[in-house]
Amino acid sequence: MIELYKLTEYLQLFKEFSMEDVKLFFSALARSKTLRAGEVYIAAGDTNRKLAHIKQGLVRAYMVNEEGVEKTLFFRKEDQQIAAYDCIFKNEPSRFYIEAFEETVIIELDYDQLQAFMERHPQYEKARRHFIQNLLMETLTRLEGFVLLSNEERYLDFISRNPGLVQRVPEKYIASVLGITPESLSRIKKRIKEKSEN
Amino acid sequence: MIELYKLTEYLQLFKEFSMEDVKLFFSALARSKTLRAGEVYIAAGDTNRKLAHIKQGLVRAYMVNEEGVEKTLFFRKEDQQIAAYDCIFKNEPSRFYIEAFEETVIIELDYDQLQAFMERHPQYEKARRHFIQNLLMETLTRLEGFVLLSNEERYLDFISRNPGLVQRVPEKYIASVLGITPESLSRIKKRIKEKSEN
Repeated sequence: MIELYKLTEYLQLFKEFSMEDVKLFFSALARSKTLRAGEVYIAAGDTNRKLAHIKQGLVRAYMVNEEGVEKTLFFRKEDQQIAAYDCIFKNEPSRFYIEAFEETVIIELDYDQLQAFMERHPQYEKARRHFIQNLLMETLTRLEGFVLLSNEERYLDFISRNPGLVQRVPEKYIASVLGITPESLSRIKKRIKEKSEN
Repeated sequence: MIELYKLTEYLQLFKEFSMEDVKLFFSALARSKTLRAGEVYIAAGDTNRKLAHIKQGLVRAYMVNEEGVEKTLFFRKEDQQIAAYDCIFKNEPSRFYIEAFEETVIIELDYDQLQAFMERHPQYEKARRHFIQNLLMETLTRLEGFVLLSNEERYLDFISRNPGLVQRVPEKYIASVLGITPESLSRIKKRIKEKSEN
């Protein structure tokens, strides 16, 4: 679901784009790719500065920590974007794996090509800033959940912001994204069920 | 402490600015203000689209939740920035209080004036995007800590990223920022002390 303040922003952005611009942008830079379920798109250690828009499907970003334990940081689905952000923003190898969780169709861009394009077309700089600003708001909202909400409230907030996702993803991954153990998540769900039955 | 990738970025940015630009920017838009310790700079409910650079001092952002419990979301200190981000990015009243925790000197900007300035000087758009990008990286790093690290690791990471802050701030606020109870934080500190003595 798109929030109102985002919609207003998007409408403003589109005023600055012509259909020709959009075609130019995508034909020059973007490639469509299909990833099969389970396919690793970005691996830990990769240095490719890739980013992609998800047309269809679901991807999972995870890290394997020093104890060999896999931790899922986030899921991204249709109409969201993924990026090798350690590579792009820090010029470091990716610490994360990004894999297709379902068969996934993406539109892929190379960040360095995008950069070169932006240098030639600075009129898009504002749109790019809006895009990053929206990512910042999304990240801040999620961060706030960890400080301001209880585990139960964070779970309820998560399912209201990500409708349909819990049906597509096993519980252990949802627990990881929420920063809790699978056992805690089971207890939370049981408690919510009991409340709704009373 | 500034990280290497940021330094490289800042150096690139400054190539695009002349001293004249910087003077113009600050003389036209910025005001210096001194807040006394405990003074509320932004209150919950405020709609002023303010942002500020902290020259000296320390500020705290907190929220009062539905149960009347105060939750501290973050501290910002010298050379960092604060903003009424609900007002600026969402056009909604601030959910947060931002108060001076020590006597604090800020350079204040009005966001709408900044916007108008940016419209007239689009050459700064790139610098603004970099600034937001850095905020995004900072926020992502903190978010990662909640998913990838244990409470003890998150505390150790926090003190290494914020040297000197634990000396300036009572433990209950640090616990809140870390998303744990003050009792958990005490146990963590005790455990770390015991480990270092063995």
